Amino acid sequence: MPSPGAGSPRFISFEGVDGSGKSTQARQLAAHLTAQNHDVVLTREPGGAPGAEEIRRLLVEGAPGRWSPETELLLFTAARRDHLERTITPALERGAVVISDRFADSTRVYQGATRGGRAEIVDQLHRLMIGREPDLTVIIDMDPAQALARTQSRQSDNAPDESRFESFGLEFQHTLRQGFLDLAQRWPDRCRVIDGNRPAESVSEDIRALWESFSA
Amino acid sequence: MPSPGAGSPRFISFEGVDGSGKSTQARQLAAHLTAQNHDVVLTREPGGAPGAEEIRRLLVEGAPGRWSPETELLLFTAARRDHLERTITPALERGAVVISDRFADSTRVYQGATRGGRAEIVDQLHRLMIGREPDLTVIIDMDPAQALARTQSRQSDNAPDESRFESFGLEFQHTLRQGFLDLAQRWPDRCRVIDGNRPAESVSEDIRALWESFSA
Repeated sequence: MPSPGAGSPRFISFEGVDGSGKSTQARQLAAHLTAQNHDVVLTREPGGAPGAEEIRRLLVEGAPGRWSPETELLLFTAARRDHLERTITPALERGAVVISDRFADSTRVYQGATRGGRAEIVDQLHRLMIGREPDLTVIIDMDPAQALARTQSRQSDNAPDESRFESFGLEFQHTLRQGFLDLAQRWPDRCRVIDGNRPAESVSEDIRALWESFSA
Repeated sequence: MPSPGAGSPRFISFEGVDGSGKSTQARQLAAHLTAQNHDVVLTREPGGAPGAEEIRRLLVEGAPGRWSPETELLLFTAARRDHLERTITPALERGAVVISDRFADSTRVYQGATRGGRAEIVDQLHRLMIGREPDLTVIIDMDPAQALARTQSRQSDNAPDESRFESFGLEFQHTLRQGFLDLAQRWPDRCRVIDGNRPAESVSEDIRALWESFSA
């Protein structure tokens, strides 16, 4: 298999609110690069490794408020560390492209930006225990009302307790959207905002063009 | 129930290697203070709260090497945060005495002192996410060969994978012992070393005297 060029992004994360289409787009890019004969690992958070998936179950199952924000943050970070060590780093070392549906930016937004005063602790914990950013982060930007409508229409498909963040309503969706846009300003080198309020195929085309521009 | 005097240690941890008798001694002190009509909460780590006990299962079950030292450290810290928030702090706030079989010093020794170069990361994570020390820490000091013999004689009573640290042998027991003695030097105000190489009742008497001297 051809290795991506020296300047190519090797570790790509997809970020955005639930309902933004980021999982679909991550899968589309993985299929596109696989068709180009790249070795591609498509993964997701929380989870992405056997141990991390067990930690995921602690996070998504059980009653709301089961964990305090700080305990939840530690569990997300434990899962991420396992994911990084067992899946992401070995794949990068053998020359694969890694595409992750969510990474540390989701924690920055969901545990940091939305819960007053915790952004700094999220950053400190990340620096201490993770210390790795993606080479390219694709942020799918989405009208909050449309994202909420999408997640509500598919709630019946989800495990009942995986949708607890969606239940917070429209104002929360606005806060999340702003959190992701703020991250794009903070890390302009690696973050790109893609307009997700369009047909999926148009969004995919933009993301393929983005990959090409990063790899040129 | 009478509250302990203003100067009494309210949060007491018992530390030492497995086989040192610390669990027995923690229980003995709890029984003694209960007989004196104190409100006593006897707890343990990892675990001590429903969520923390679930995290404990991730830590003690499964194959050795299942978690990296860093992921393990994050899981211990998540369990400790939950234990502190759900069990220890509420008990202290209502005026109870809390006696915990292990607390953060065990992590300092097992994850910090025995695994080269990780002492600093253990301390940083503790300061960031826990930030609480016991008022009194009873370190039961034990001849390493005797502690090892004791744990080996009761291995058949333990769940098979709860004894993974004991399998590291005598040299490891020496390292652990030194780790606990170093902590006593680092925190002379709260740490007291008790000679555990004696009949359990003599050890208990010393610990009761220690409680009285701290409470005077």
